[in-house]
Amino acid sequence: MAASGGRDWEKRTRYCGTLRKEDAGREVVLNGWVQTRRDHGGVIFLDLRDITGIVQVVCNPEFSREAHSSARSVRSEYVLSCRGVVRERPAEAVNPRLSTGEVEVMAERVTVINPSRTPPFEIEEGREVDENLRLRYRYLDLRRPELKEALVLRSRVTREVREFLSSRGFLEIETPILTKSTPEGARDFVVPSRLQPGKFYALPQSPQLFKQLLMVAGFDRYYQIARCFRDEDLRADRQPEFTQIDLEMSFVDPEDVMSLMDEMFVHLFREVLGVELYRPFPRLTWRQAMERYGTDRPDPRWGMEIRDFSGLYRDSEFRVFRSALEVGGRIRGFRVQGLRSPSRRELDELVEEAHRLGAQGLVWMVREGEDLRSPAAKFLSAQEVEGTLRESGLGEGEVLVLAAGGEEVGEVLSGLRDYCARRYFTRPREQYSFVWITDFPLFDWDEEEKRYKSNHHPFTSPSRECLDFLEENPSQVTSESYDLVLNGVELGGGSIRIHDAELQARVFRILGLDEEQAREKFGFLLEAFQYGPPPHGGIAFGLDRLVMIMAGKESIREVIAFPKTQSGTDPLTGAPDAIYPEQLGELRLRPV
Amino acid sequence: MAASGGRDWEKRTRYCGTLRKEDAGREVVLNGWVQTRRDHGGVIFLDLRDITGIVQVVCNPEFSREAHSSARSVRSEYVLSCRGVVRERPAEAVNPRLSTGEVEVMAERVTVINPSRTPPFEIEEGREVDENLRLRYRYLDLRRPELKEALVLRSRVTREVREFLSSRGFLEIETPILTKSTPEGARDFVVPSRLQPGKFYALPQSPQLFKQLLMVAGFDRYYQIARCFRDEDLRADRQPEFTQIDLEMSFVDPEDVMSLMDEMFVHLFREVLGVELYRPFPRLTWRQAMERYGTDRPDPRWGMEIRDFSGLYRDSEFRVFRSALEVGGRIRGFRVQGLRSPSRRELDELVEEAHRLGAQGLVWMVREGEDLRSPAAKFLSAQEVEGTLRESGLGEGEVLVLAAGGEEVGEVLSGLRDYCARRYFTRPREQYSFVWITDFPLFDWDEEEKRYKSNHHPFTSPSRECLDFLEENPSQVTSESYDLVLNGVELGGGSIRIHDAELQARVFRILGLDEEQAREKFGFLLEAFQYGPPPHGGIAFGLDRLVMIMAGKESIREVIAFPKTQSGTDPLTGAPDAIYPEQLGELRLRPV
Repeated sequence: MAASGGRDWEKRTRYCGTLRKEDAGREVVLNGWVQTRRDHGGVIFLDLRDITGIVQVVCNPEFSREAHSSARSVRSEYVLSCRGVVRERPAEAVNPRLSTGEVEVMAERVTVINPSRTPPFEIEEGREVDENLRLRYRYLDLRRPELKEALVLRSRVTREVREFLSSRGFLEIETPILTKSTPEGARDFVVPSRLQPGKFYALPQSPQLFKQLLMVAGFDRYYQIARCFRDEDLRADRQPEFTQIDLEMSFVDPEDVMSLMDEMFVHLFREVLGVELYRPFPRLTWRQAMERYGTDRPDPRWGMEIRDFSGLYRDSEFRVFRSALEVGGRIRGFRVQGLRSPSRRELDELVEEAHRLGAQGLVWMVREGEDLRSPAAKFLSAQEVEGTLRESGLGEGEVLVLAAGGEEVGEVLSGLRDYCARRYFTRPREQYSFVWITDFPLFDWDEEEKRYKSNHHPFTSPSRECLDFLEENPSQVTSESYDLVLNGVELGGGSIRIHDAELQARVFRILGLDEEQAREKFGFLLEAFQYGPPPHGGIAFGLDRLVMIMAGKESIREVIAFPKTQSGTDPLTGAPDAIYPEQLGELRLRPV
Repeated sequence: MAASGGRDWEKRTRYCGTLRKEDAGREVVLNGWVQTRRDHGGVIFLDLRDITGIVQVVCNPEFSREAHSSARSVRSEYVLSCRGVVRERPAEAVNPRLSTGEVEVMAERVTVINPSRTPPFEIEEGREVDENLRLRYRYLDLRRPELKEALVLRSRVTREVREFLSSRGFLEIETPILTKSTPEGARDFVVPSRLQPGKFYALPQSPQLFKQLLMVAGFDRYYQIARCFRDEDLRADRQPEFTQIDLEMSFVDPEDVMSLMDEMFVHLFREVLGVELYRPFPRLTWRQAMERYGTDRPDPRWGMEIRDFSGLYRDSEFRVFRSALEVGGRIRGFRVQGLRSPSRRELDELVEEAHRLGAQGLVWMVREGEDLRSPAAKFLSAQEVEGTLRESGLGEGEVLVLAAGGEEVGEVLSGLRDYCARRYFTRPREQYSFVWITDFPLFDWDEEEKRYKSNHHPFTSPSRECLDFLEENPSQVTSESYDLVLNGVELGGGSIRIHDAELQARVFRILGLDEEQAREKFGFLLEAFQYGPPPHGGIAFGLDRLVMIMAGKESIREVIAFPKTQSGTDPLTGAPDAIYPEQLGELRLRPV
């Protein structure tokens, strides 16, 4: 066997997926895995796979007896080194689904570098395989093109984000993983200290405090692709560790942060997906978003904006409407898009969905000529019908849904919007819809604990125009905050932080923290703020979610190389695992 | 106060450190910190600092009464916004130590954005301040130019490394932080699992197993700037968490890895430091390094190669030499460079140093004409003198040091080389000396446990030429391993891994692991290796150490934003800290 440098296999001269018609006649060496092997009576065809793709290798005994003979023992997922000559395929044999489909490689020599057992599932696109099995054999699962492509995409996303931020003067600075609790509010993972028995490090839920300290230190523009940790009861699509694109800037206002992020995402989508986004991204205040979409994570692609029809029904004979209005409620609703001349059944389903979403009732109205078909029709005056048609802009056969009640109706209508979008739209008007939600309330009233809590975190700056009524009317105070929403998914959020010690103290008081409690919780940050903190603000994005959307996946587990299950375990490594009693002893801990 | 957007300060139009003569006449707004304030009877000079540097702001009441009046209340580290006009300084007032030293800014308006308490230490270059105090106020310490520059350098280093590796087809892939023990051998930090009581995650000592799994998955070229963790008793300059430049490649041999890393460091030093390195970097086998320098971390810049003079003294009258040779020892030594015509005291100090290093004795010889001055002189034959002069190449007045004994002499001579370099060389011949050390022993004999242990880790591939005597003579087996040493500091190391299940089993047996033990420790990797692992290898570098050397620092704490003390604590945040009993309860743990 002619191999160099003591190896018993030849190193590649080319990657499989890169061979093209222009390479015809070239002698190449390929290294890769056998995707499939087909024995066509005498001639053996191997699809050889590497990171770049697949090419067909032809083992014809008339071309090389040696190669053909080696290929007979080969099976799926064997690792090979193949030397051969690139040849253009005859027109009828061209495979248009392969980037290398116009060529094949006539094998001169086939060397088995490593054999493989038969994989527990087929390594092919789109196969439905039990996820636990996939995670247990993640190294095989990762050979599937869709997962591989998702991780390649992820690598490109982080690369372009870094490139963009570096070019804008951001420094990448690492903050500690072994640290102290951050004020995020979720449960911390803790790490017992052996050198300081009885004490624990906390894994960071975000680099929040450190990035603010870096601003105090004068670093001006910081970023990090940061690993963060939350010990939550794992719901739906959460992971105990996740990755954030985290950044902070000094001497800025919300506009600076948002417009820079607009630029970043335009750059990212152009470079990675070839998609041209338009900036500035639309912006809605939190109040506008709640009013028009009933949620602070709207997906405006579906249209169906919620409108207030209260004025029309002020004196209605229809009791449901009138009585809601009498107790201060409103009549709100939207025109269903994608549904025309619905069956009774379709209308009933809308009502059922509204009930599922917690509504007490839902009124539908269908335009029929200049009239409305509706369970409420017989109570409506001509004026009300005419006004409804005018204000809703209903086309012939189109449906208006209306719900009466307090602010909770927004949530029902938001859910119903999602339902209608899933049900009646096959394709959104645009593929990607970014929208900024700004001016969130600074405080949320906690009905259970009868006190105000921070909506973001306690360092979020109130809007300047609210400084005069901070204490008088906390629930009306908005903040210098902004969330970025993509296709109805919250990508991330941030705020301008308080840089004034006195204002921070006022906010703490409203949160019910006296000076001592504040010092205990955030002492080192408050102390740092005695030494000339600059005005600063920032934002953090969930990288996993961003890549998930860009890759068109349904779960963040599809864009993480080694994710954990819902119960926080890794079926591959067996983590978490028992440890030796001596290890626990060294940590001065004992199981209860 | 005329500020826009609800702010009560004006946003900068320029960075302080960027102003130049060409800007004279321009009106600018600067945001930054007061480095110093000097009141020259009527005119106040402020040095204003931001991330880019310092510029002088002149507050002259004749130019602006308002600015001068504001400047009177200003103190060091106040945060200001200054509007003013750039002016060329008169020739005699130019400050050549400042990049902005040819200009100053005539203040029109000075706004205090934030005051500052007097810092506990002065924020200036090169001040000697107690390190605990510095860590406690790290955000102030980080304002010092030397620390700031070190972190800016670090950011550039990671950027260039990423850029280089991306351009060579490496994918950045994140591996888990919450995982299972890796076979590195040091103590793991562990994280109790709340959802799986009694079980623990381990923080990774390296991504070793995961990067090998990524190769099995076919990712071909992986890299990560990876956080790693070791719960060690902190010696000298170690940190419980540290950062590695970690990479792995498929279908490669040692030459591929080393030559690519040569390119990477040439690129890095050119782009970041403007230093041109020459490649390929020199290479020594482990055996050569031990022979010539007495250490596997040599610093060849000092010359002073160790040579074997045994042959000359085979029949010597000098008992020390002859008796060492008779029991199989050797006479080795080197010509001291930088020392000429030494005093008796200097020679005695050399001997003392050798004693401190553990030598039983050291013989010095000084060339005087064609003769040797030495305590051994009267025992030396003319032939021995002549041979010594010839083989050592001693110049007039130069010193040769010789030690007799077994292999332990190498360590003494290595220490003595360092001593001589520190003592007699003020400046090395080159600033940066890279050298590869290859072919380390695969196994080390553990005298205490009476068994072989892995020198690197158990997946390191033996050199092919040793496969025939693996079991017969383990101590003679070398490995396909390579360490990169810079200026005598180990930057990192790696190896080609075993990709053959049978060979891996042989190595485990020599290490005294039976199949069951091996499965228990590395089961999932061994299982993965049943499914077609490619030949692969990689390397990992300590980023902290690399940046330390590039920044010319003495400690890695000078290149880490938020380091921990020797006892693993953070005086800034107070980590590690006590946790609430309920938290421990949730983890089903109790202190002993």
